[in-house]
Amino acid sequence: MQELTIPLNPKAGIPLYEQIYRYIKEDIQKGRIGAKEKLPSSRALSAHLEVSRSTVDLAYGQLLAEGYLESAPCRGYYACSMEELYRLVPDTEMQEPKDTGKTFAYDYDFTPNGIDLDSFPYGIWRKISRNILIDDKKELFRLGDPKGERELRETIRSYLHQARGVNCSPEQVVLGAGNDYLLLLLSAVLGTGHRIAMETPTYKHAYRIFEQLGFLLSTVPADAQGMQVDQLQKTGADIAYVMPSHQYPLGIVMPIKRRLELLAWAEERKGRYLIEDDYDSEFRYKGKPIPSLQGSDSGGRVIYMGTFSKSIAPAIRISYLVLPRELLRLCEEKLCLFSSTVSRIDQMILNTFIKEGHFERHLNRMRTIYKRKHDLLLAGLKPLSGFCRVAGEQAGVHLLLEFRDGRTEEEVIDRAREAGVRVYPLSEYRTGGERRGEGRCTAVILGYATLSEEEIAEAAKRLVSVWS
Amino acid sequence: MQELTIPLNPKAGIPLYEQIYRYIKEDIQKGRIGAKEKLPSSRALSAHLEVSRSTVDLAYGQLLAEGYLESAPCRGYYACSMEELYRLVPDTEMQEPKDTGKTFAYDYDFTPNGIDLDSFPYGIWRKISRNILIDDKKELFRLGDPKGERELRETIRSYLHQARGVNCSPEQVVLGAGNDYLLLLLSAVLGTGHRIAMETPTYKHAYRIFEQLGFLLSTVPADAQGMQVDQLQKTGADIAYVMPSHQYPLGIVMPIKRRLELLAWAEERKGRYLIEDDYDSEFRYKGKPIPSLQGSDSGGRVIYMGTFSKSIAPAIRISYLVLPRELLRLCEEKLCLFSSTVSRIDQMILNTFIKEGHFERHLNRMRTIYKRKHDLLLAGLKPLSGFCRVAGEQAGVHLLLEFRDGRTEEEVIDRAREAGVRVYPLSEYRTGGERRGEGRCTAVILGYATLSEEEIAEAAKRLVSVWS
Repeated sequence: MQELTIPLNPKAGIPLYEQIYRYIKEDIQKGRIGAKEKLPSSRALSAHLEVSRSTVDLAYGQLLAEGYLESAPCRGYYACSMEELYRLVPDTEMQEPKDTGKTFAYDYDFTPNGIDLDSFPYGIWRKISRNILIDDKKELFRLGDPKGERELRETIRSYLHQARGVNCSPEQVVLGAGNDYLLLLLSAVLGTGHRIAMETPTYKHAYRIFEQLGFLLSTVPADAQGMQVDQLQKTGADIAYVMPSHQYPLGIVMPIKRRLELLAWAEERKGRYLIEDDYDSEFRYKGKPIPSLQGSDSGGRVIYMGTFSKSIAPAIRISYLVLPRELLRLCEEKLCLFSSTVSRIDQMILNTFIKEGHFERHLNRMRTIYKRKHDLLLAGLKPLSGFCRVAGEQAGVHLLLEFRDGRTEEEVIDRAREAGVRVYPLSEYRTGGERRGEGRCTAVILGYATLSEEEIAEAAKRLVSVWS
Repeated sequence: MQELTIPLNPKAGIPLYEQIYRYIKEDIQKGRIGAKEKLPSSRALSAHLEVSRSTVDLAYGQLLAEGYLESAPCRGYYACSMEELYRLVPDTEMQEPKDTGKTFAYDYDFTPNGIDLDSFPYGIWRKISRNILIDDKKELFRLGDPKGERELRETIRSYLHQARGVNCSPEQVVLGAGNDYLLLLLSAVLGTGHRIAMETPTYKHAYRIFEQLGFLLSTVPADAQGMQVDQLQKTGADIAYVMPSHQYPLGIVMPIKRRLELLAWAEERKGRYLIEDDYDSEFRYKGKPIPSLQGSDSGGRVIYMGTFSKSIAPAIRISYLVLPRELLRLCEEKLCLFSSTVSRIDQMILNTFIKEGHFERHLNRMRTIYKRKHDLLLAGLKPLSGFCRVAGEQAGVHLLLEFRDGRTEEEVIDRAREAGVRVYPLSEYRTGGERRGEGRCTAVILGYATLSEEEIAEAAKRLVSVWS
């Protein structure tokens, strides 16, 4: 082959070997060095280019490793054939979709999502993080238990037993990075042939996730006690998803009788399960928290689900499943494969936060804060009581406002909007045939977690004035 | 009904209202108060028990909320009917499966899993954590972008472009809590009707996960260049999973020609994809890193996957997908539902770690450390070179030792075991019909990341003495 006269620039900031490597690579890519063509020996090339032989060896080595050259013993280096396969990589256009920020700017947003983060004990969290990273640091950076760290699972078990009446062993607790992930995990454990029944209205996010995961879905009307079991029977579902402590969005507390009926339904046939989503039961403003459905389950039919997203912070990404023994076995057999999705360091921070009593103190503080907001909102909306009923109060961080004077949801939302206040239509939470809300009363949802007391008072005032 | 004489103990440490609540609840559960039986008015009961009326109201309120009582306006409280549904919750036996710690104690374990954590800059990580939690703290505790924080995705994009030749926009980068999660996510995006082809031997963990997720799997023999494309054609697979930069466990670097053949295969038919698992390409001890397959992909056929588990620490739980535009659209449509599995705080810590140059410095330091271990192991095993060939060296944190003198894998493993050294049989990584290794040469895998230099030297000495 002809001599390779490579223009080298020692001042280019690119190592000489790399300049050689790039030049030859491009020549081969562009076909200037043809397939099977022999390259100069490294000695010849280094002499020609006036560089050290090791520089050329390094360049040839890289070209060999990437497959641009091949070497034949005692015969030297040859360009590989790229045949017709070669294509230049175009400079891909890296255009980003633009944000079309055309959202309406509300003064007050009663979003049911989000929590009050003003009172979070950041200092304590930071201090614990710092200490965790000092002590025993190396071990924490290794891969942990697929189900989550044993200590934290035991801490959560003990918390759930005391606070929620959940009966389980730490073995049954499985941690995951958020509820969405846990639903994904659950669908892998259960397999997707199942039909899941959900109340309507319901937590739409879970509904959509089940839909996406390929589950069949049925909608069961909720009466004042929650999911109607005779209607559930008719759906042919084998899994029912409920929120017995505080149904979302209706706020219904499922009475013990309905709970026992649901448990009886689940035990009627093998393979039936109840998913209990206990998303915000920490916050109850009157009396004790409502015990979990899992605590009444002697037949191992309840899959209990909880999260620290509401009680600590959404960004924490730690949720937990309590699996019945039968599913636990299945989960361990099938899914011991999946490494935990929660950082071990974060798990240990949370464990300390709970064990040192900070979680309990934080919950008590938040209960007081939310109760004040709750009371303030109820008081502020009082003038509407002539034609408007509050439901789902005394718990959680949202309530429901039902209009009984014939006005439509759209009117209610629009009036609020004109006053700069965002409230959320209940119809958005309905599923299935009930979607269009035939004959249903008009209702809106008001979440009060993210607004300050002043904002709540002012927003309520505006709502009263436009809705009266 | 008869009067309720509830034995109250003001010193029990349990609020009086709760004692009343518990007593009545148990009476209803045990049938001592029958269905539809009327309870004393709260005024009567408070007088009878000599407690304040609000105490009784609180107890009744809780029993109402949980559904043990119902109230009829102006008529008072009635016990609900529990019918035959009621069952006592037994004291569940909380027995734990015992650890049967009967594992053989090796002096030296050449595990291919795990990394060297001695040199991790814990102090810097801790300092960044602390600063992150101070600055702008509140925002970080809110739920973030489902795909991961924009800043970190941009940082990763830039890193991948510079270090791995990956061409993408930050939009195409999706973060997840570990590779296992990303495979779960990917299966939800792709749907499970697909057939995935993997080389044999291969990364068995991914193979098993695909199996569990319900994918069909095909095994394609690897020649010296990696997956054989003509064999791939025959499998009917529409997805091929490859590790072009450093095949696991063989250590093959896929040459450019084979890469282009694979890309051509993927472009031949719509819906075909290549999954490029770029698990340890950061570590290469000779020349530059091998560019990614994604960088040669102009047709949008490569799903690129990488992780910080090897390059930072397994416990960090941050991995990333780079999705081709076509799949990105699908992913965004279907999976915008799923909240990110990575804590926002952790994402910001990692972002700062990379942007301030700590990651690059750490990688360079680790490359030097691993190279020393790699060289030491090669030097230590030199005496075996008469009947034993090293493969897959110059990169990653493991190498392959092939015995060409007819001895069986079992003999090799057993001799090492007797010397207190654990090495890993290649046959464990084979899949499909090739599993039993007909006519294959004997080979073992030695990972050197977790052992110290002294341990490597001593372990190599022992291996030489028992294998010679």
